[in-house]
Amino acid sequence: MSQQASLPRGFQTAGFTCGIKASGKPDLSLFVSTVPASAAGVFTTNKVCGAPVIVSRSRVPSSTSRAVVINSGNSNAATGAPGIANAEAMTATLANCLSCPPADVLVCSTGVIGVPLPMPLLQSGIPQAFALLGDSDQHLLDAATGIMTTDTFPKLTSCDVAVRGGTVRVSGVCKGAAMIAPNMATMLGVIMTDAPLAPEQCAAMLKAGVDRTFNCISVDGHMSTSDTVLLLANGASAVTLSDDDLQQVAEAVRVVCQHLATSIIRDAEGADHFITVDVTGLATRDFAWRMAKEIAESALVKTAITGGDPNWGRIVSAAGYAGVDFDTAYVSLKINGTEVYRAGTPVPFDAASLSTALKTNRDVHLELAVGGGPCSGREAVRFWTSDLTAEYVRLNSEYTT
Amino acid sequence: MSQQASLPRGFQTAGFTCGIKASGKPDLSLFVSTVPASAAGVFTTNKVCGAPVIVSRSRVPSSTSRAVVINSGNSNAATGAPGIANAEAMTATLANCLSCPPADVLVCSTGVIGVPLPMPLLQSGIPQAFALLGDSDQHLLDAATGIMTTDTFPKLTSCDVAVRGGTVRVSGVCKGAAMIAPNMATMLGVIMTDAPLAPEQCAAMLKAGVDRTFNCISVDGHMSTSDTVLLLANGASAVTLSDDDLQQVAEAVRVVCQHLATSIIRDAEGADHFITVDVTGLATRDFAWRMAKEIAESALVKTAITGGDPNWGRIVSAAGYAGVDFDTAYVSLKINGTEVYRAGTPVPFDAASLSTALKTNRDVHLELAVGGGPCSGREAVRFWTSDLTAEYVRLNSEYTT
Repeated sequence: MSQQASLPRGFQTAGFTCGIKASGKPDLSLFVSTVPASAAGVFTTNKVCGAPVIVSRSRVPSSTSRAVVINSGNSNAATGAPGIANAEAMTATLANCLSCPPADVLVCSTGVIGVPLPMPLLQSGIPQAFALLGDSDQHLLDAATGIMTTDTFPKLTSCDVAVRGGTVRVSGVCKGAAMIAPNMATMLGVIMTDAPLAPEQCAAMLKAGVDRTFNCISVDGHMSTSDTVLLLANGASAVTLSDDDLQQVAEAVRVVCQHLATSIIRDAEGADHFITVDVTGLATRDFAWRMAKEIAESALVKTAITGGDPNWGRIVSAAGYAGVDFDTAYVSLKINGTEVYRAGTPVPFDAASLSTALKTNRDVHLELAVGGGPCSGREAVRFWTSDLTAEYVRLNSEYTT
Repeated sequence: MSQQASLPRGFQTAGFTCGIKASGKPDLSLFVSTVPASAAGVFTTNKVCGAPVIVSRSRVPSSTSRAVVINSGNSNAATGAPGIANAEAMTATLANCLSCPPADVLVCSTGVIGVPLPMPLLQSGIPQAFALLGDSDQHLLDAATGIMTTDTFPKLTSCDVAVRGGTVRVSGVCKGAAMIAPNMATMLGVIMTDAPLAPEQCAAMLKAGVDRTFNCISVDGHMSTSDTVLLLANGASAVTLSDDDLQQVAEAVRVVCQHLATSIIRDAEGADHFITVDVTGLATRDFAWRMAKEIAESALVKTAITGGDPNWGRIVSAAGYAGVDFDTAYVSLKINGTEVYRAGTPVPFDAASLSTALKTNRDVHLELAVGGGPCSGREAVRFWTSDLTAEYVRLNSEYTT
């Protein structure tokens, strides 16, 4: 997994160790635009959400955002009214450095739940981190590192787009590797671009990108209280975007989101396999998404792949309980390119060699196609997941109180 | 788990080894009423369902049912049109013994998926099993044993109800312990009563009972292709039931269903803990059910309990993503009677002693209460589940092809 990426123009970042984590690892990151930026966000739909989600959600979309401050090691979730005040204080501290209103600063937190934030550490740490801001690749890597919890590697990427009169860059970082006790190890992402975008363009591009990437991954199906992806666009590229250019930028946002989202699955806790699930031929995208998600989240599908077992019955039956109307007589399934089920009937295949392939390749491809019938259509979804191993259980059941 | 239960009047059962299972364990069971009985069934809603589900579903409700034939070791699922013919042939073979129409015989199968039934074994085995029919407790135990797959103990119970002019008995057997490769180890249940019930009364009682029991358990959230619960009522008690009596019989059906359903959770694959989830205070029963189910099926809740970790954040956050509108400011949670979260705020508790209690007791009780707010109400649901252990992963990931 490459850890090389560059910032768009007009952005500076920093990573810092302010002392929240007992491990002494970096736990504070800043993402700053040198000029006011358009901003949009996508947030967890969990009714139990962290204080930073409540604060940041109220501040986007915006045309005057300046920065995002993120701490790891403490999620500031389930902390009541004092938690809201602490999230607001974090933004006020950074706003003070930037001489901007606190409302122009967004905030995320990830880590242990139900514990008050150690505000003195943050109040002294944020100005110290501010003094470290810079726009080099190392600064971006530092910021990607400062938001990690149980991640084993920092997750970052950037993508250049040639447009009329210049180039635009889209860069992003994220963190996440499942939820692990005592941390609610949340999925957080920050995407920055120097493209000139209005707030509503930011919101539309971010939603479209997230829908096909971050919303198409699952490690364990447990939706966090703090999931947040933010997009900031500061226009520092000084180009004017045609409609075609806008489509290219939107595609770059999607590509960056996909790189980040799949890197979370590559880093999934305890996982031995990276699984791509393609579902095709449904009447609506939502139907295809629900079917792919059920396959991806089935403990029995995951454990079969852990064991290198081409147990297609588990895959087909998971599709069957997705609450989607379809006719099994039109369903076919391939595992790593080998057809095992065609038009609702088992197909003879070399189980031993397919099993060997599953055991020797980290990447697994499941292709479920609905090939006809009254409920079929042309909609498709790609979904990514990991397998379920004894190591995942060990990581998540160790005594932590 | 008591394995002592008695048949209602007018029922005979048998268990037999016809040779489907390579292990040589019993694999064929018959449940016969000596007189035509009312019958109702509840079946999997999986779109990918076994041939026996298709055949039996078409034959209930009925007022002339005579028997149920069940084989284990082969689920006759994903077997196409020949599978339907084989399921029908099984009923025809038993109907021939009984001199009744095949439509008066119901059929279930559980075991490996996608493999044609070994019909010669069944065609010779069914008459041999028929010759063994009897009404002793041992006969019922034999029938409960013949339907087992990965179960570690047979599951059966009976319940007597005093009614005006006599007694009525409700007895049942079931099997199930999750789905394990290569078997689609299905949940199957057969409930028999000598109460005089019309088919529609059977259907209503069975649905009400199953909704609060078999539909409130989950080992791994993977809905089988073959799940079936059948109720046969033959009237052999020769009593006339008042409305009060009918309610008592319905309650007995629910009690029998609950005993059987919870015995599946007690036998869950690899499980160390038996977990009861109570959700109270919702506006609708469906809301409470969805919230309880999300808690019960969360891999992170399950692994926390495996590790004896009173990690309440995982429980509350699982409730939060159930798609149910509620206000977290009114939510409270108890773990084994210890309040850990009250009105949306963490409550200090002795984590070490609660952890010890979780580690030393097999039974865990989670009580999530929504205590007010505009979305609250008086509806409650009890749900049962097991924890998730490395042993579950081992059992389900072993190489089987």
